[in-house]
Amino acid sequence: MSLKNKSAVIGIGHTAYSKGLGRSELSLALEASKKAIDDAGLKNTDIDGIVRWDIDNVQDDALAAALGIRELKFFATAPWGGGAGGNAVQLAAMAVATGQANNVIVFRSRNRGKQSTQAGGGQHSGGRPWEKQSMLVAGSKQFTVPFGLASPVQEVAVLTRRHMHVFGTKAEHLGGIAINQRTNAVRNPDAVMRTPITMDDYLTSRWVAEPMRLFDCCLETDGAGAVIVTAAANARNGRNKPVYILAAAQGISHGSQGMTNYYRDDFFNTDSSVCAKTLYQRAGVQAKDIDVAQLYDAFSTTVLLLIEDFLCGRGNAGALIESGGITFAKGKTPVNTSGAGLSEVYLHGFNLIIEAVRQVRGTAVNQVKDVELSLYAAAPPVPTSAFILSKNP
Amino acid sequence: MSLKNKSAVIGIGHTAYSKGLGRSELSLALEASKKAIDDAGLKNTDIDGIVRWDIDNVQDDALAAALGIRELKFFATAPWGGGAGGNAVQLAAMAVATGQANNVIVFRSRNRGKQSTQAGGGQHSGGRPWEKQSMLVAGSKQFTVPFGLASPVQEVAVLTRRHMHVFGTKAEHLGGIAINQRTNAVRNPDAVMRTPITMDDYLTSRWVAEPMRLFDCCLETDGAGAVIVTAAANARNGRNKPVYILAAAQGISHGSQGMTNYYRDDFFNTDSSVCAKTLYQRAGVQAKDIDVAQLYDAFSTTVLLLIEDFLCGRGNAGALIESGGITFAKGKTPVNTSGAGLSEVYLHGFNLIIEAVRQVRGTAVNQVKDVELSLYAAAPPVPTSAFILSKNP
Repeated sequence: MSLKNKSAVIGIGHTAYSKGLGRSELSLALEASKKAIDDAGLKNTDIDGIVRWDIDNVQDDALAAALGIRELKFFATAPWGGGAGGNAVQLAAMAVATGQANNVIVFRSRNRGKQSTQAGGGQHSGGRPWEKQSMLVAGSKQFTVPFGLASPVQEVAVLTRRHMHVFGTKAEHLGGIAINQRTNAVRNPDAVMRTPITMDDYLTSRWVAEPMRLFDCCLETDGAGAVIVTAAANARNGRNKPVYILAAAQGISHGSQGMTNYYRDDFFNTDSSVCAKTLYQRAGVQAKDIDVAQLYDAFSTTVLLLIEDFLCGRGNAGALIESGGITFAKGKTPVNTSGAGLSEVYLHGFNLIIEAVRQVRGTAVNQVKDVELSLYAAAPPVPTSAFILSKNP
Repeated sequence: MSLKNKSAVIGIGHTAYSKGLGRSELSLALEASKKAIDDAGLKNTDIDGIVRWDIDNVQDDALAAALGIRELKFFATAPWGGGAGGNAVQLAAMAVATGQANNVIVFRSRNRGKQSTQAGGGQHSGGRPWEKQSMLVAGSKQFTVPFGLASPVQEVAVLTRRHMHVFGTKAEHLGGIAINQRTNAVRNPDAVMRTPITMDDYLTSRWVAEPMRLFDCCLETDGAGAVIVTAAANARNGRNKPVYILAAAQGISHGSQGMTNYYRDDFFNTDSSVCAKTLYQRAGVQAKDIDVAQLYDAFSTTVLLLIEDFLCGRGNAGALIESGGITFAKGKTPVNTSGAGLSEVYLHGFNLIIEAVRQVRGTAVNQVKDVELSLYAAAPPVPTSAFILSKNP
């Protein structure tokens, strides 16, 4: 069997998004989960599966206890942080398709504060991972951290510079991504950043790690989101029209090395390119069939790479962006319609998953007309994942 | 659909087991994987999926690169350390059953050395997790670590004492578990501990955390293991007779809190009791149908709890052990036939998975006669998982 339309998203929920909510990750996860359960027309005790991100501070047992679930029958951890989003939904889809669970919550909760006092969370609370870099650096990081690549923006700066060198990508292309998302966020009451920005604003914003500017970087924010996945056969009983999971995929290409994939034969043989190829094969559709796309944006560069992997081919994003092809106003396939990580909230892509569902439901603030197929793709320069949602089963 | 016999284990492999192999976890994982691939009659490049333990220091991308895999299409992380084993195989079974991968490696690699210098591993190398306890203790550990429960043996000592209080469990019952496994290990040339022990040896062995003695505790060892899971439909092409995965399950019961589940209504409403109930429902078999059982043994107590959860009901393990019911010589359902974590090697249960497969193949050193159903169950006092292997599809 395949996973094709065997499952559906039947509930979505999220907390407020903010620079600082002052609450534990568990409290945020619980609020988002309860909203999603309510949106699905279910009771807490209908949930028998939980999928979390590996980087989440909330454990499955803690969320299950908080929801009052007596027996949790499926729980899984989607790996690779920003690359986890597609896989998290995929794992839930696999679970309901194979009878391992009936109703699975997929969630992500984040508290950027450094001093969160959580019960039921993990060992580390809030803050930025690279602040906690241990003195002993093992794994592939031993080859990069001592040479100055201590944070993700520095790692992605190398990728960006190389893309500029090979494909003639310009600052204005990255700026086009940032401006597109801010423009979308202006109409989104949930978004943290709603002040319009111009290309001048972008080009004069400060360097964070050259060639990455302030507006190329995602927000450090608090918030949580949750979605409920159930088997397609049971999905029609809910409060909302089901949004079917047409296909999901993951990818690791040869030579993958976290975010420092500088040693491959082909610098841009991204993990997401493997993922995209597999995804379209499984879905039986092509890039041109996608109506709207939510593309992981820790940085503008990750959007750039995903536009090429999933929509227009390597080296072609610059031209597509210049022509307005990713905008809500003019684009054939509008990208990051809620404002996403650069302007709505940064939950390692969870808000993009929620927006992908809304676009099929027809309830987005920047609603693309007649959406049949809605794409979500996770972080391109790490082992990653993606899925396509479908209006029709 | 269900997962019932939709997939099979077609290859197994492991390294030498030792107190110190002096090699990186990646090197060990690679050796075990190549042996399993060879045992399955496959080439490295036939592998398109990898499932790892969350506590493993080897990342999926590093193992994929080492194996020369150009495109990895499925990768997943089984959560909860000692509770991960059943889920790791379950995730592989789900992947091949739903077409997310064709041939999935499940592996576990361990280097107890504190100074391993690995490429491609995680942030932390070797050693015991509680040695690395950070000053800031978050999550549920904030309620136990400051009061002296700093290591797993201390946490499980509380559970053991309570079991003795409620059910009259005696030191000799725990000793019976330790002796059974050592007796099995004596005939296993791969086992690290092959010197026979008597009840006197057990009762005079030193306290580690009262009432836990030295022989109640698993070994600190190096080693790696791997198994290959493929769809049942493709399983007959291999070098060995396929071993079918009849059913798999997970469980978290209400009030679960890592290994310190002291605050539940019922102290012994273990996560594994939920798992066992679900597993037997899905498999359509009963405890009495199990021919041989591999039960997670970080400590003798975890075997005690799993015997009750999966074989004879709460409070009944002592009598079963006294009657010889878990031994290879006399038992109706022999337990931990390779010597397992107390005497063979401690890979957080991976060696038990391999032994569960061997018992169906008929190639175990302590081979139970005419095995049709072979049980593996992971750690009982944490969110956990289990599966039943079947000789017949």
